[in-house]
Parts: sequence; structure tokens; C-alpha cells
Amino acid sequence: MAKQLRAEILCVGTELLLGNITNTNARDVSVYLSELGIDVFYETVVGDNPERLTKAVDIAKSRADIIITTGGLGPTCDDLTKQVLAKAFGLEMEFHAELAEEMKRYFHDVLGVSEMTENNLQQAYLPVGCTIFHNDWGTAPGCAFESGGVHVLMLPGPPRECNAMFKACAMPYLRALSDEQLYTHNLRIVGSGESTVESKLRDLMNELSNPTLAPYAKEGEVLLRVTAKAKSQDEAEALMEPVLEKVQATIGDLIYGMDVDSLEEVVFVLLKAKKLTLATAESCTGGLIAKRITDLIGSSQVFRGGAVTYATETKTSVLGVPADVIEKNGVISAEVASEMAVRARKLFGTDLAVSTTGLAGPDGDGKNPVGTVFVALATQKEVYVSKISSGIGRARVRILGSSCALDMLRRYLTELPVVVDYYKK
Amino acid sequence: MAKQLRAEILCVGTELLLGNITNTNARDVSVYLSELGIDVFYETVVGDNPERLTKAVDIAKSRADIIITTGGLGPTCDDLTKQVLAKAFGLEMEFHAELAEEMKRYFHDVLGVSEMTENNLQQAYLPVGCTIFHNDWGTAPGCAFESGGVHVLMLPGPPRECNAMFKACAMPYLRALSDEQLYTHNLRIVGSGESTVESKLRDLMNELSNPTLAPYAKEGEVLLRVTAKAKSQDEAEALMEPVLEKVQATIGDLIYGMDVDSLEEVVFVLLKAKKLTLATAESCTGGLIAKRITDLIGSSQVFRGGAVTYATETKTSVLGVPADVIEKNGVISAEVASEMAVRARKLFGTDLAVSTTGLAGPDGDGKNPVGTVFVALATQKEVYVSKISSGIGRARVRILGSSCALDMLRRYLTELPVVVDYYKK
Repeated sequence: MAKQLRAEILCVGTELLLGNITNTNARDVSVYLSELGIDVFYETVVGDNPERLTKAVDIAKSRADIIITTGGLGPTCDDLTKQVLAKAFGLEMEFHAELAEEMKRYFHDVLGVSEMTENNLQQAYLPVGCTIFHNDWGTAPGCAFESGGVHVLMLPGPPRECNAMFKACAMPYLRALSDEQLYTHNLRIVGSGESTVESKLRDLMNELSNPTLAPYAKEGEVLLRVTAKAKSQDEAEALMEPVLEKVQATIGDLIYGMDVDSLEEVVFVLLKAKKLTLATAESCTGGLIAKRITDLIGSSQVFRGGAVTYATETKTSVLGVPADVIEKNGVISAEVASEMAVRARKLFGTDLAVSTTGLAGPDGDGKNPVGTVFVALATQKEVYVSKISSGIGRARVRILGSSCALDMLRRYLTELPVVVDYYKK
Repeated sequence: MAKQLRAEILCVGTELLLGNITNTNARDVSVYLSELGIDVFYETVVGDNPERLTKAVDIAKSRADIIITTGGLGPTCDDLTKQVLAKAFGLEMEFHAELAEEMKRYFHDVLGVSEMTENNLQQAYLPVGCTIFHNDWGTAPGCAFESGGVHVLMLPGPPRECNAMFKACAMPYLRALSDEQLYTHNLRIVGSGESTVESKLRDLMNELSNPTLAPYAKEGEVLLRVTAKAKSQDEAEALMEPVLEKVQATIGDLIYGMDVDSLEEVVFVLLKAKKLTLATAESCTGGLIAKRITDLIGSSQVFRGGAVTYATETKTSVLGVPADVIEKNGVISAEVASEMAVRARKLFGTDLAVSTTGLAGPDGDGKNPVGTVFVALATQKEVYVSKISSGIGRARVRILGSSCALDMLRRYLTELPVVVDYYKK
């Protein structure tokens, strides 16, 4: 059996030590390494200082098989990651004319700058004999080399470039280091908490060794990761298939997608494919559903608009919810959610509309527990209403309310039962 | 002159190495230390493993005067930060009955749990002779001790508890370590980029040594930090006052607040004080203004609701913007922004209304550059319209659009000129 590889992530940048930016690169690289089955025992952050960086590299060399650096590859005098790493491993630097040409083209074609300044050429120097990681998302190339049994991979600091280069260049480089590799699928679950998902799957999780199954709590949803170790993608898929079927049979249609970006993206794609339009009527979520949809490029193809009727009377004056329906049932009720969705659909002239009315807290209304949200979906023919009890926390209640509204849309558009017991234990 | 203190931040938690959570504690603690004038040369992340944590502590001891740990103070068998640190510095652990009582009260009064489980008592053991950091925001107490010239401070992992305990307990402990201390004011600026702020203040920044002045780019705004080194708060304030006056004279009313939480919070407080109500009419910001306001607890006191009129026709059908105004001026125009605000104010029956119409991109409309946003504020008597050219990036355009709308409200409510050249170089 092959040796279990250990990586150390070494993030370089004084701005990290000052707290000016959050270290999302460390998190993202950690996720990729965990997907590859490579252990991370330490992460180190060090400033743009050659002596301290050298010391950090010496420590990392002594305890890791793989060192992954982020940052310090740019054109300024602060950028010294390549030089320090090359020196620490006894390598010279070498100029790559074709990288300089790539940079000039990037400046000209993408940035619209005709003359690239001279200092950018520093980025075309790389350690002798390294594997070049071309940067299609910026100017600074990354690279990888092996020396004395340690693999060093260097990635740029801007999170967009770091992520893209990891997936395109570092991932295949690291996969090639071992015979067997890890392959993963990420299942996304909405409407159920992490502990509920875990308890439902505990027996299956315990009996599995390859693939493995692990749930993670994310904002308003659960990520369930299936990971198989295999010699090829096909072999991995064959291992994962029966497990995916068992998970599907247990968790069922609370899974909204596999290897997808977000719930709003899934809903957007479905709406677009069916050429259906959407409107929103939001009370407790206060514009969050509309915001999540309009975050997406091209959302104007399906989203026509929404009403944020936060004050009770505006539900009547703007949407036309009859005052006596509110009077009789209370503003936080299935009836009011239903009226809001039906009337938003008419007001905005759309095929579908979703609504929310609930208690985000922290103050209660003396009637419903904080965290109660009614979510409705109006179609041409029907209205569906779900009640969720999401527990406390203003931000949490708002996120879960918006997610359940989007999930009802997904269920309707994929012909699943629209109303389910969200957050049932 | 006193020795410049060096701190190392040591974050403990396997979930960090797996990338399950983002290390916001490292960022927040870095910011506090930089405000205190304490250098951070290294940050290290290590998992819940006693051997590797011991090794990381040994390295930290050799290169730092202050070690600040986060995480691993809880009640489970994974939580071993206190034990490992005490052992590394040769200290025994000691039980604190009063801490156990505090925990029981927290479980009963805050969590509503009558019987606290036995494992929680582990949290009442602390290194002999340490300074106790009481936890008023959770159960696990923190602590600080000095041994062999190194100060060790231990803080809990949940970000809310870590932040609150740093401010309440670690801050005074660290301040007491030196005669002279750093005091800061944070000025918040909207409507101007970091490079513009920096170029306006460069001369002043260059001539200053105490206090210092440093701008930082934040999401949709600029943070300008003034930092004075002094023996007391009064002395620091006296040093900062003339600088604050000069900054005010240079940047002027683009500064929306000092030591405040957010622009929406500033606007909310002003609206509440003046007992004025607000409505929104959003196109390109798609619900983001409403979302930012309703994020705030108590926002229903001032916010009545809003319309997200994303499709052009909904500006007419929902808000009543005359079709010929749109036809004549184009949907992205001062006239349409103005009509949207005026009509949202009437529709929602509020004192004030703000609106946005613009091009978030990435696609253009063949007429306006991507990033063009018209923002309007309607009051009982007048309508004000600002035009912003915020540059590219869909998320950026949306954030800046929402911030400028909130800023126009702030200007109106504090009797400043409402329309200014936002993002003028």
C-alpha cells in the first residue's frame, strides 16, 4: 500500500497577518486536498519577509511530503515566494520567453493595456526544471517541482486564480503522485439539518469504507460528500453508484442536486428550460429570495420582480391581500402566505410566484414561536404552502425561509411532491 | 523604549484543516493585534491532535512573546488545547468550582437545559495560577498565563465567543503588557475608492508618525484607520483630534461614520431617531437594499417594504412609472430612477423612498457602460438623483448601487448635500 501523503499549506502575505483579508485560499485548498485524500496536518501563514518565509519553509520541509504555497508570485518587490522556495530547495531560476509572451497577450487582449511594465517580466522566471502552471485567469504563472522527496506547488494569491489553477493544474499533478486516487461527488441537501441527515445515514456510514460518506453543515443546507478511492474515474463511479442509490433511497428528494453550484442556480436552470417566469412576495426574508436569484447572471430571463411587503398593511395596499384574511388568521399564517403568492403572481404577470411570512426574531409575536415561517408557491392552477420551524437566529431563519421557497419551486418544476415536512427530526 | 511584542496565532481544529469552516478567528484576532500595535509574524493552524499541537506550541514558543490560541476549549474529548498548553509550559490543571456554577447557570438560564451533562465540567479546569477569562457568551472559559517570558492567551473557537472574549478580556490583558498602548478610530467611507482616498491623504500620511493613518478596501467601501500610541486614552484622543480634523477637511462628508457597524445601521438609527419610514424600488440591486436593511434587528420600525421591479414592464405595472418616460429616456436613466422612487414612496405610504436602475452586467445594453447605476431618493418635497459609474463586476455594481442609495438617505437625514460625485477620481 502506498504511503499516505501529508501536505502543508503555506500562505504568504502580510495582508493576511494584518487581518486585511480572510484566508479563503487556505480553506479552498484544504477542501481540494481532502477530496484528493491528502492529509493536511498544518497550515502556516507568513508575511512577505524572506527570512521568516525561509524559516517557515524549513519547518514545512521537515514535516510534509507536499508543500502548497499561495501568494507572492506577482510582479512587485514584495513577491518573493518563488525565489525563497527555489533557494530553500537549492534550485536556480530560469527565464521563460513564452511566459513573457503569454503575459503580454493577457495585458493586451484582456486588460486592454498596450504596454506591459517591465516589472511584470519577473513573473516569467521559474525554478529550473519545474512543471509550469499556466495562468489563464491572471498574469502570474504557478509551478511545481520535486526535490529531495518533497513536492512543492506554488499558486497565485488572488482567490479566483488560486482556485482555478488548483483545479486545472494542481489537481492532475497531485493525482499523478499516487496509483489510487480519490474521486468525489457532492450531494446538496435542503430542508433537513446535519444531525438529522447524519442519524439517518449513520448505519450506512459505519458499514462503508470505500467509498466513504460524510455530511457537512453549510449555510442553510447540508453538503453530503461521497468519496471513492480507485485507479480510474470509471472504477470510482462503479464503487459510488450503489451508495448513491442507497443515499437517494434514505434521504430522497431532499437532495436538490449533485455537483451543482447552488439551489438558486438549480431553480434558475429549471425555469429557463421550461420558459417559466417568477415573482416573489417577501415578508420575513425581506428581499433575500430576490437578491439570491438576481445574483445570477442572466436572471432577467426568468425573474420579473418581487414585492417586499414588510409592514403588515403593505400586504394589503401593495399586494391586495384582503385585510380580513390577515385579521382572521394572523399575519404569520398559511392563509396570508397563500394570498401573497397568488397576488404577487398576478401583480407581476408571471407563471409562478413564491412568498414568505414568518417570525425572524429575536422578538416574538406572542402567538408563533420565533423561527416559524410560512412559505407558499402559487402556480396557474394551485397554491402550495409549507410551514417551517427553523429554530432561532435571525440570519438563519431568513436563509432557511428563502431556501425553502426556492426548494418548493424546484420540487414543482421536477414534478416532486411540493409540500414536505421541512426540518422534521 | 519597550521591546516590540511579537504574537503568534495558533488556531486549533481539524475542521479548519479540512476546509469545513473559514478561519475568520485568525483574521479577527489579527485585526485586534494590529490595532494594539502587536506584530504577528506567523499564524499556524493545527488539528485536534495532542502530538502535533505540542510540536506547534514548541515552535511558537521559540519565536513569539505572545501565543494566542483559538479553539479546543470545549467539553468533548477532542478539546485539548488547555491540557496541551499547560503541559508544554509545565503547569498543572486546577478545578474552579465557581466556573462550574457559572456553566450550570448558563445551561439553565440561557439554554433552558435543567441538567448539564458531566463532560461539561472539564471546562472548569484551568492551568494553575492563570487569569480567568469568563465566558459570558457561551460555556467554555478562556484564560491567560505567563511562563518563561511567554504570554499564553486561550480563546474559544466559536467566532462570536472568540471575538467577544478578545475585546472584553484579552484586549485589557494585552494593553497591560506595555506602558504605551495603541488606540484606534475607524472611519468608514462610502462613494470613493481606496486609491482615491489614499491619493488625497498621501501627503498627510507621509508626514505623520503618531498617530498613523491607513486606508483599507472593504466590500463597497473604504475603512480608514487612525492609530495613536499613548499612555492613556485621553492622551491618544488629544493626538488623534487634529488628524481627524484634517481628514475630515480632506475627505469630508464621504465619511459616513466613526467606529460604527455598517452604513445600513447608521441610516436605520437616523430614521428611527427622526421617526421616518422608508420604502425601496430596486431594479439592478434586485432586493439587496431591502435585504441589508431587514438584516437589522428592529428594522420593521422604519422599513415598510419595497418593490423589486426587475423586468422593465413591472416598473410600469407595479410602480406605475409611465411607459413613455421609459420609452423616451431608456430604462437606465435619471428620469426612470426618479419616477421609481416617487411612486414607491406613494405605493408604500412612506416618508422616504430610494430606487436603483442600472446595468449590473456582464452584458451591456448598447447605450450605457456596464456599471452605470442611477440612484434616486424621493422625499415629501423633492427627488434627488445620483449617477454612479462603478466599473465592472456584477457583485460590485450591485453592492455599490445599494450603498449609494443608503448614503443618499444618510446625507438627506443629516442635512448634507444629497447629490455628490460618487467615485470621482
